[in-house]
Amino acid sequence: MQVGIVGLGLMGGSLGLALQEVRQELGIKRILGCDSNPLHAQMALSLGLVEECVDLRALQDCAVVFLATPLDGIIQILQSFKPSLQTTIIEIGGAKEQIINAILPAIRPQVVATHPMCGTEFYGPKAALKGLYRHKIVIFVDCEKSAPEHVERAKEIFSAIGMQLVKMDAKSHDAHIAFVSHLPHAISYALANVVLSQKSPQTILSLAAGGFKDMSRLSKSSPVMWRSVFSQNTEQVLKAMDAFLEEMHGVRALLENQEWDALQKWMGRANKLQEFM
Amino acid sequence: MQVGIVGLGLMGGSLGLALQEVRQELGIKRILGCDSNPLHAQMALSLGLVEECVDLRALQDCAVVFLATPLDGIIQILQSFKPSLQTTIIEIGGAKEQIINAILPAIRPQVVATHPMCGTEFYGPKAALKGLYRHKIVIFVDCEKSAPEHVERAKEIFSAIGMQLVKMDAKSHDAHIAFVSHLPHAISYALANVVLSQKSPQTILSLAAGGFKDMSRLSKSSPVMWRSVFSQNTEQVLKAMDAFLEEMHGVRALLENQEWDALQKWMGRANKLQEFM
Repeated sequence: MQVGIVGLGLMGGSLGLALQEVRQELGIKRILGCDSNPLHAQMALSLGLVEECVDLRALQDCAVVFLATPLDGIIQILQSFKPSLQTTIIEIGGAKEQIINAILPAIRPQVVATHPMCGTEFYGPKAALKGLYRHKIVIFVDCEKSAPEHVERAKEIFSAIGMQLVKMDAKSHDAHIAFVSHLPHAISYALANVVLSQKSPQTILSLAAGGFKDMSRLSKSSPVMWRSVFSQNTEQVLKAMDAFLEEMHGVRALLENQEWDALQKWMGRANKLQEFM
Repeated sequence: MQVGIVGLGLMGGSLGLALQEVRQELGIKRILGCDSNPLHAQMALSLGLVEECVDLRALQDCAVVFLATPLDGIIQILQSFKPSLQTTIIEIGGAKEQIINAILPAIRPQVVATHPMCGTEFYGPKAALKGLYRHKIVIFVDCEKSAPEHVERAKEIFSAIGMQLVKMDAKSHDAHIAFVSHLPHAISYALANVVLSQKSPQTILSLAAGGFKDMSRLSKSSPVMWRSVFSQNTEQVLKAMDAFLEEMHGVRALLENQEWDALQKWMGRANKLQEFM
């Protein structure tokens, strides 16, 4: 079979590398790529992420087409792309409700909505990593709305590249992921901006150790990609932000009122995270 | 020379391991330990972090005594410990102004105030790590208030275990570290508590990938140790918290008002962190 990947950045590019490793097992003959940025398409080719770059239209006869662009792009493609009847379209956007609502009824059975829980703060074809998907979770969202044969094909591929499958409805996905991914990104961007807006960021940052590095890593992520996530999952992100702001104002009050016993208890409660992960 | 370490947790225990590696170079004959928790003292011995555990008083003739307890403990010891005149006391607390103000004039020249910028979220003797201090920064704080021979001795030791030295006054230290360490810890504790207080933390956390893991790592840190940091650097931490809260309320407003261009710009600004680290 031929596989197409639309969007050859961190996620799409790494997918190209992952598929090459299992091409025999899956019977993949050719891995085609497509990127709206010609420079990225060229880079993806020279990095060996895909074997040929073509126009979106040329992907319509692929057995499988992955959509790995920013979320706005996924919606645009889902509304304009005319795949052959046999094509499985697997979109891997990080927020699901708006994407799923945008799928045209004519192709709904062919589209499998998924969210692989992996990534790094880097982006573009150069960010592509061998093994990015291995041993990670992929969430299949609202998959009862896709035809079983297309879901099966998607499962087969994600299993082959080493992922663990989880099922979830779109609403729960967007609510949970707001806490576990979208909010942490907003916090990390805010932390970076706070330090950068101080009088001597260079001096402050010269003292940064592992803690700050971890907490600020996500702030290096792609603004284009995250704009599309925040604009598509606004309601859930606002809910998560409000819960977080309440918590921050709460600990601020403990400090201001010098309630050290209560503060220690509050930190002890957070320690319970260890029981889960 | 004999070296004493008071407090045999992550920092003190790792220091014991580091000193063992350079004992010939520094001419260390014996590494003594002291911990107010008898279980920790025993554990430190059986883990080989120090060679003998003794009472605090028995450390008064050591050539060098490190104070590596939580900050409240450092102040207590600085006010009760009676070292011989030749002893260099090196305290390694993570907030400096209150500790430095608490040093009795009689021993002021002997005390070198430092802050090694390293650590992990784990604590207690079992958390001790070989190489924790290697290639990290150590801040010498207000070191013109210590006698040059004691500062020299401290420098020699930290250089031997592979650290890079930086000088700073206590006020700047506490202000900078509030941003680069204390605020990130408060944020991480808050993030963990937010998720744990949701209806189904287990489901949410089962989806956590690298981003959330990094952002919540610090929330596993010791509540006792961090209580003492927050209570000793309250003013600076509140300032950093307020700056961060302003930034978070700012991005919340961008989302609520759907100002996507402004949001993208804001994230782009945060990306500039890469130029510094």
